[in-house]
Amino acid sequence: MGMITVKITLKRNGDFMKILKTIPKEDGFHMPGEYEPHEGCIIIWPERADSWQYGAVAARKAFVKVASAIAMSEKVTVCASEAQYDTAREMLPEHIRVVEMSSNDSWARDYMPTFVINSKGQRRGIDWGFNAWGGLEDGLYFPWDKDNKMARKFCDMMDTDIYDARDFILEGGSIHTDGEGTVLVTENCLLSRGRNPHMTKEEIENKLKSYLGADKVIWLKYGIYNDETNEHVDNICAYVKPGHVVLAWTDNEDDPQYAMSKSCLDILEGETDARGRKITVHKLPLPSPVYITEEERDGLLHMDMEPTRQENERLAASYVNFYISNGAVVMPGFGDENDEKAKKILEELFPDRQVIQIYARDILIGGGNIHCITQQIPKAVK
Amino acid sequence: MGMITVKITLKRNGDFMKILKTIPKEDGFHMPGEYEPHEGCIIIWPERADSWQYGAVAARKAFVKVASAIAMSEKVTVCASEAQYDTAREMLPEHIRVVEMSSNDSWARDYMPTFVINSKGQRRGIDWGFNAWGGLEDGLYFPWDKDNKMARKFCDMMDTDIYDARDFILEGGSIHTDGEGTVLVTENCLLSRGRNPHMTKEEIENKLKSYLGADKVIWLKYGIYNDETNEHVDNICAYVKPGHVVLAWTDNEDDPQYAMSKSCLDILEGETDARGRKITVHKLPLPSPVYITEEERDGLLHMDMEPTRQENERLAASYVNFYISNGAVVMPGFGDENDEKAKKILEELFPDRQVIQIYARDILIGGGNIHCITQQIPKAVK
Repeated sequence: MGMITVKITLKRNGDFMKILKTIPKEDGFHMPGEYEPHEGCIIIWPERADSWQYGAVAARKAFVKVASAIAMSEKVTVCASEAQYDTAREMLPEHIRVVEMSSNDSWARDYMPTFVINSKGQRRGIDWGFNAWGGLEDGLYFPWDKDNKMARKFCDMMDTDIYDARDFILEGGSIHTDGEGTVLVTENCLLSRGRNPHMTKEEIENKLKSYLGADKVIWLKYGIYNDETNEHVDNICAYVKPGHVVLAWTDNEDDPQYAMSKSCLDILEGETDARGRKITVHKLPLPSPVYITEEERDGLLHMDMEPTRQENERLAASYVNFYISNGAVVMPGFGDENDEKAKKILEELFPDRQVIQIYARDILIGGGNIHCITQQIPKAVK
Repeated sequence: MGMITVKITLKRNGDFMKILKTIPKEDGFHMPGEYEPHEGCIIIWPERADSWQYGAVAARKAFVKVASAIAMSEKVTVCASEAQYDTAREMLPEHIRVVEMSSNDSWARDYMPTFVINSKGQRRGIDWGFNAWGGLEDGLYFPWDKDNKMARKFCDMMDTDIYDARDFILEGGSIHTDGEGTVLVTENCLLSRGRNPHMTKEEIENKLKSYLGADKVIWLKYGIYNDETNEHVDNICAYVKPGHVVLAWTDNEDDPQYAMSKSCLDILEGETDARGRKITVHKLPLPSPVYITEEERDGLLHMDMEPTRQENERLAASYVNFYISNGAVVMPGFGDENDEKAKKILEELFPDRQVIQIYARDILIGGGNIHCITQQIPKAVK
C-alpha cells in the first residue's frame, strides 16, 4: 500500500485539543471569578479507602448531595474509574453526566484544568503540574500520575485547547481570583519546599500573573491551621465579588488559628486590589474545632504502613470552602452552632443565589471540602 | 441540615442522556445509511494480547492508520483504557480525540451505539445487548461486561438519549441498512443459538424493523467462511448506495465460500428492497484465502488454557469490510493480487469519495476488519 496520497482536506480545524506553549496573558486570556457564569462543574468520584473512611460509602453520599445541588443550576460532570462507574451512575441522578476517568483521588479543584477566557468568549484550560501537594518532600500520597493527567484528558474530551504549564506545580485550590486582575494566595503553600523550590517569590508571582492573566498577587501568609495542603487559600479566604472577600475567623485568641486569621486580616485591610480598590473583608466564623474520632480513624485504610490520620487529629474545617454555582452557593455544614450563622452571612453576601448547606463532615475527613472537590468551567462560546 | 428547599429550577433540560424505553420507529427514528453525512467515528484502541498478536504492537499501528484516514474528513474519537491511554494519545495525531473508556476488546462496530435519526435531524443511540458473539453458547471470550457498557457510556459522554434494547442480543456488524427502509442480515448470525434463541425469526425481524425504523429485512443465509462472528453480514455484503450492494465473491467453485456467496447472490437478485427496487449486486473479488502463520499464532496469548487460533486457521479476509467516511472509503488490503482490483471497483462505485486502502492483516488476525473496528455517528442537530 505504501504512502496514501491525500486529496481530502482536514475538516476538523480547531475542533480538537491543541497543547499550547504560549502564555495566556499574552494571548488575551484570564481566569474569571467563580461568580461569573459557568458552563458547568467537574467532580471526581471518591474511591480510595485511605482517604475516605469505611470504603468511601458516606463520602459518596455527600458527593452526590453536592453534585445534585450544583446540578440544579449548571451541568455537572462526574469522573469515575471503571471500577466505580456503575455505582456512580446509579447513585447520581440521570441529569448528571458520568464519564470514565481514572484518578488517584478526588480533588477536582486541585488538578482539573483552571479555565481561562478571553474577551471574545473563547475558553482554554491550563494544565499545571501536580505532585500531590508536595511531591516526595511533603506530599500526601504516591503516586499521583493519574491525577496529573486529568486536566489534559478532560480538555481532550471537551475539544478544548490547553496551556502546558506542567513545569510549574500548582493546585487550583491554592489560588482565588476576583476575575478583575487580582489573585489571592498563601505564602505557606506557594513558597513550600515541595512545590517550586527553584523559583523565587517574584518568579512565582510572575508565573501566576502571566497564566491567570492577572496584574496583582496578594500574598497572605497562612491558611487554616493543620490544613495538609500547606494551607490552601480556598479554605481561609474567598472572593464573593470584586472588592469583597470572606475570611475564616475565630475570636478565640487561644486558638492557633486566631493569629493566622488575624495576619490575613491585617494584610487584606492594608492592601488594594489590581484596580486600586480597598478590599472589604467579611468575617465568616469558623466552626468549633473539629477532631477526628477514633471510630472515623479506624475506618481508614493505612498507607505505607501508617495511618493516614493522627489520633484525635484536628481537621481543617471552614465554611469558606464553598462552591459558587450559577444559581447557588453550596457550602459545608458541620452540625455546629455556627452553621446557621455562617449561612446567614453568605445569604446576605449572595442576595441573588440560594445558599445550600450540606453536611460535609464526610468530605472534611478526606482532607478538604466542597470547593476542593469541584472545578467550574466558565461559560464560553467555545 | 435535613431537607434542602429548592428554589432553583433545573436548567439542564434535555442536555443529558435519558434512557428511553420507547420504540425508535414509533418515535419517528431510523438508522441512516453509512454513506449519509457523519458527525464522526468511534474507534476502540486494541489491547488484549489474546486477540492481537505480539502485544498488539502491529495492530495499534494499523488502527492509527485507519483512524488517521477517517479523520481526514470527520471527527474521530478513540476510546482507550487507563493503561493504554498514554500510548494511544502519543501514537494518534492530535486532531484525533482520545477518551478514557475501558473495554474487553476493540470492536466499536459491534458494541458502540447504533445511532438513529429523525426527520428533524435529532439523533439517539440504541443500546443493544452484547454477549461476545454468542455468550456462554459459542461466544469468543468471557467476560464481556465492559464492552456491553460502552454504548451507554458513550451516549452519556455525548449527552445523547439512548434506547434500551439490552434484552435483545445484537452486534452492529450483523446489520447493514440502505437508510431507506431495508436491512440486510444473515441467518447464520441472527438465528444463532447463542444470541436470541427464545425468539422466532419473525420476532427478530420485527425487532429489527421497530428499532432500525425499517420496513423490510432481507435474510441472507451466510457470511464469510470461518467468520467467528457467526458470519456477520458486514464482512460479505454492504450497501454502497440505495439499490446497490457489493458482495464478496470468488469464482473458485472448490472454495467453500463459493456456495455461500452464490446463495447470497441468488437471494439478492431475487429480492426487491423496501421501496420495491430491484437490487443491483456488484461482485467484489475476495483475496486468495488467508491463513494464520505459525509465527503469528505464536504471538497470541492463550485464553482459558487454549490458543485463540487454530494451526493454519483460515481467516475471514474480505474487502467488503470497509468504512465509508464523509470523504473516503477506507478499505482493507492484504498484499494480494486482488487488492488493486477491489480498490478499482470501489473507486467506480464511490466516485465522490477517495478510496484509501490500508494493509490490514494485523486487524484481520484479531478477527475482523476496518468496518468492525469503527462505528459512525450520523450528523444531527443534536
